[in-house]
Amino acid sequence: MTYCVGILLDEGVVLASDSRTNAGIDRVSTFRKMFVFEKPGERFFCLVTAGNLSLTQGVISLLGEWLNNENPEQDLFAVGSMFGAARIVGNALREIHKTDGGYLQQHEVDFSASFILAGQIKDGQLRLYLVYDAGNFIEAMGVTTYFQIGEVKYGKPILDRVIQRDTSLSDASKCALISFDSTMRSNVSVGPPLDLLIYRRNALKTGFTVRLEDHDPYLKAIRDGWGAAILKAFHDVSAGSGWTF
Amino acid sequence: MTYCVGILLDEGVVLASDSRTNAGIDRVSTFRKMFVFEKPGERFFCLVTAGNLSLTQGVISLLGEWLNNENPEQDLFAVGSMFGAARIVGNALREIHKTDGGYLQQHEVDFSASFILAGQIKDGQLRLYLVYDAGNFIEAMGVTTYFQIGEVKYGKPILDRVIQRDTSLSDASKCALISFDSTMRSNVSVGPPLDLLIYRRNALKTGFTVRLEDHDPYLKAIRDGWGAAILKAFHDVSAGSGWTF
Repeated sequence: MTYCVGILLDEGVVLASDSRTNAGIDRVSTFRKMFVFEKPGERFFCLVTAGNLSLTQGVISLLGEWLNNENPEQDLFAVGSMFGAARIVGNALREIHKTDGGYLQQHEVDFSASFILAGQIKDGQLRLYLVYDAGNFIEAMGVTTYFQIGEVKYGKPILDRVIQRDTSLSDASKCALISFDSTMRSNVSVGPPLDLLIYRRNALKTGFTVRLEDHDPYLKAIRDGWGAAILKAFHDVSAGSGWTF
Repeated sequence: MTYCVGILLDEGVVLASDSRTNAGIDRVSTFRKMFVFEKPGERFFCLVTAGNLSLTQGVISLLGEWLNNENPEQDLFAVGSMFGAARIVGNALREIHKTDGGYLQQHEVDFSASFILAGQIKDGQLRLYLVYDAGNFIEAMGVTTYFQIGEVKYGKPILDRVIQRDTSLSDASKCALISFDSTMRSNVSVGPPLDLLIYRRNALKTGFTVRLEDHDPYLKAIRDGWGAAILKAFHDVSAGSGWTF
């Protein structure tokens, strides 16, 4: 399994991904699921990935091979808009499906993937997309401030309660880590290290990245602090049911 | 969809269920999913149900028809142990599957169900079971203090952080309602009114039941209080990441 989140804010964007993969419960590995393509000062893209690992790796490799081929339907460094960039990710996904899909189907292997794409091209807007397995995609707009992929449910309530468009990058990063903590507590197939990236709007280059191991002091402080804060919050909520039993 | 939870505590048991059913998004109805069979002073059983409504209603009706037939493999009022009672629920489920399953399969209708059973028979222990679609079941023991059925993920983190065997019936009820609030915020196919039942260990009869409509003052106080408490908890957690970006 996998858990990834991308959060679009006035100040910029926060992306986070876990790094656990498993092919059966006795074959657990660590693979990075966050990838950056950037030309500092001109364009910045970050992808986080969920699904079949050979498929997601294939897409990332293909996007790398297509760089600088100057075909605007393939080259993230040549494309003129974020809409076009999302199409390129979809195209790459369709290409790998076309190449490998039939064979995998013969072996009855689940062969699907999804991606969150964030990015900005000079003179354009910062945008956040969710690319589905069919290569189609949607964009975050209006009240939709985040996308999740993979094991999305355990970590959703805290995002819904905290994240708004004007949440700070710092608070959104903290909220993302709490969301991961709730998910990792409930699903052992989501696990550290966690990759987190912060992009400041209009920077046109990666702002900050960190890989948080399980024993990272900040991750541990959030985990312990959140456990205690939730218990306090629980006891602070008025319990005046008036019921007798 | 459905959400139900059963929590086993030193003091007793708390069960809660939503009441929304839907056959497609344009056919949404309200049905009770909590059912009590009791002989006050001698035995008490409570079932909460998830899955295909014709199947769960069939099981509940069959359990009602079997009452007082004095067959210990069918009659909840004759069975000698909670283990036997869980078997009876499984038997009823298998019976309905046998009667209707083939026809439903012909129509490609998803025909599955699960149940949480709590109960106590005089001179026996209070026990909590999760009965699966195949009619087999597991019992809550050791560190396992609760079972959920239906849409289980959104509401699980708060249960994991709060519920222990020595949690009070009052706190467990509050926690169950917070768990429902998180679920109902994220999945519109889980909805009020909520049914909640509190059984005090060794009482051998229902202790307290309530049906909470959406506008119920206690449910509203918990919903509003929890939203505010979570935001406060979020801001209380140390944010000393030391990151610069």
